[in-house]
Amino acid sequence: MSMVVVGSVAYDGVETPHGKIDRMLGGACTYIALSASFFTQPKIVAVVGEDFAQEDTDLLLSRGIDLAGLERVPGKSFFWAGKYSPDMNDRETLVTELNVFADFDPKLPDSYKSAPYLLLGNIQPGLQKSVRAQMNQPIRLVGGDTMNYWIADFRAQLLETIAEWDFLLINDSEARMLSGETNLKKAAAKIMDMGPNTLVIKRGEYGAILWRREGHFMVPGYLLEDVFDPTGAGDCFAGGFMGYLAGQGVDLKSDSVDHNEIRKAVIYGSVMGSFCCERFGVDRFRTLTRSEIDGRFEEFKEFTSF
Amino acid sequence: MSMVVVGSVAYDGVETPHGKIDRMLGGACTYIALSASFFTQPKIVAVVGEDFAQEDTDLLLSRGIDLAGLERVPGKSFFWAGKYSPDMNDRETLVTELNVFADFDPKLPDSYKSAPYLLLGNIQPGLQKSVRAQMNQPIRLVGGDTMNYWIADFRAQLLETIAEWDFLLINDSEARMLSGETNLKKAAAKIMDMGPNTLVIKRGEYGAILWRREGHFMVPGYLLEDVFDPTGAGDCFAGGFMGYLAGQGVDLKSDSVDHNEIRKAVIYGSVMGSFCCERFGVDRFRTLTRSEIDGRFEEFKEFTSF
Repeated sequence: MSMVVVGSVAYDGVETPHGKIDRMLGGACTYIALSASFFTQPKIVAVVGEDFAQEDTDLLLSRGIDLAGLERVPGKSFFWAGKYSPDMNDRETLVTELNVFADFDPKLPDSYKSAPYLLLGNIQPGLQKSVRAQMNQPIRLVGGDTMNYWIADFRAQLLETIAEWDFLLINDSEARMLSGETNLKKAAAKIMDMGPNTLVIKRGEYGAILWRREGHFMVPGYLLEDVFDPTGAGDCFAGGFMGYLAGQGVDLKSDSVDHNEIRKAVIYGSVMGSFCCERFGVDRFRTLTRSEIDGRFEEFKEFTSF
Repeated sequence: MSMVVVGSVAYDGVETPHGKIDRMLGGACTYIALSASFFTQPKIVAVVGEDFAQEDTDLLLSRGIDLAGLERVPGKSFFWAGKYSPDMNDRETLVTELNVFADFDPKLPDSYKSAPYLLLGNIQPGLQKSVRAQMNQPIRLVGGDTMNYWIADFRAQLLETIAEWDFLLINDSEARMLSGETNLKKAAAKIMDMGPNTLVIKRGEYGAILWRREGHFMVPGYLLEDVFDPTGAGDCFAGGFMGYLAGQGVDLKSDSVDHNEIRKAVIYGSVMGSFCCERFGVDRFRTLTRSEIDGRFEEFKEFTSF
């Protein structure tokens, strides 16, 4: 089943211990859509400027991504630049030029409104809510991401927004911040009381935890020999997770939902996040195949089962 | 099969966000032996002073631990005191009084020398080597622990010592320090070239990784609602890991070794480490039962399988 993805399509400058790229395709929506495109048809809602390159449009189209909702307006595309610490666990933002993204007011094309799956990338919670409201009701599955800035400064609006979501995907420090609990078990229980029936807490290189009322599921992070560039890994996780659910038509709200399908979605999220780190930016997705993805899924089974 | 454990038997003072205990039974050998006692018969080699309390002797005896190698000499027992950070990921050493441990020269009773399993707790590498040499040859399985201090200042002696070991159990920062590699995959390959056919890298709350030539196995850390006191958790991991191998008679060197038994040993190590944190010091082991242990083993299966 198809899924709508809302977020940023941007250009990034990135420096890691493996090298430096001054400008390359980036943005949460880009990573999510490319990752999800291996499982379902993503329809993106985003805004770019006149500088958005044809080759980047072509890459998205080559992966079957629907660009009807990719608005092109006068001005320059969102630009972000950052530099990673030697161990790549921290990064410093060097440049943030919102450009056309500053006035982003997402509008869904009519052809998107009955898509059964909606993934709201990390943007202002009020905008996430407005996109949700534009969809035809009822929607099969809606979820998304957020970040420390919205949790700290837009808390009331964020709580109103996620109250309508089926799932929330955040990292461990965001989960602690949102819940006010240091212990992840307590944090997860509090967050599920805020609305989402499903919570995924990402822990970077240490993997992820899936939380549902019936229990939790833990997966360690895939061990790479070389992490070239972790930019977008969390978004690729989201794209693999939601993409798999959409591809299989899983309904998280249903009493008869197959819990193992949700666990498999977490593994596919982890797989896609790991591939993302193997090259700079979105480069790994230019050559990646579904059989490589399924091969790594089997590797996860192999190194976690006993 | 029985196993010999060498290391410190001590008194600890510990402060965590959950409280403060001025003096309680501690020491690596104590934690290892108590943990292993649920799987096999541990025989300890250690030294204590005249202050070692009868109730502490009684606790060890009640768990079936052989104390023939527990030397009692004039003076005071090793005392260590530390204080944990609010998130308990760091700790500050407040007091280290080596006392009788300063002259510890482990001597194996004859009744220990043909034990098939030998676990060398974290002591000076030269002493670890001398204990290995006292055992009747050949020995079925030998392994142990070390720490940053020995890696930095006793490197040559440490390398000579672990060259004879079947397994090494260390944490991730120690693995990086010993190998000179930041990436854990590369670090593990280098360490296995130093001798051990099996390596376990402990990652604190994030679990552990087992490395063998045929591949690796990853287990996430158990999520506790409350960590009362993490002191000894790594030693309890070692005791559960080696205790299970000894109990099952696993030979890591054998070509026909059942790899799943080694994975199960890692899970039992994780289980014992998690129980250790539930109370101050060794308190959890006063009431713990094998059926609680097996119940938590099943929990690990439940929250990791897909």
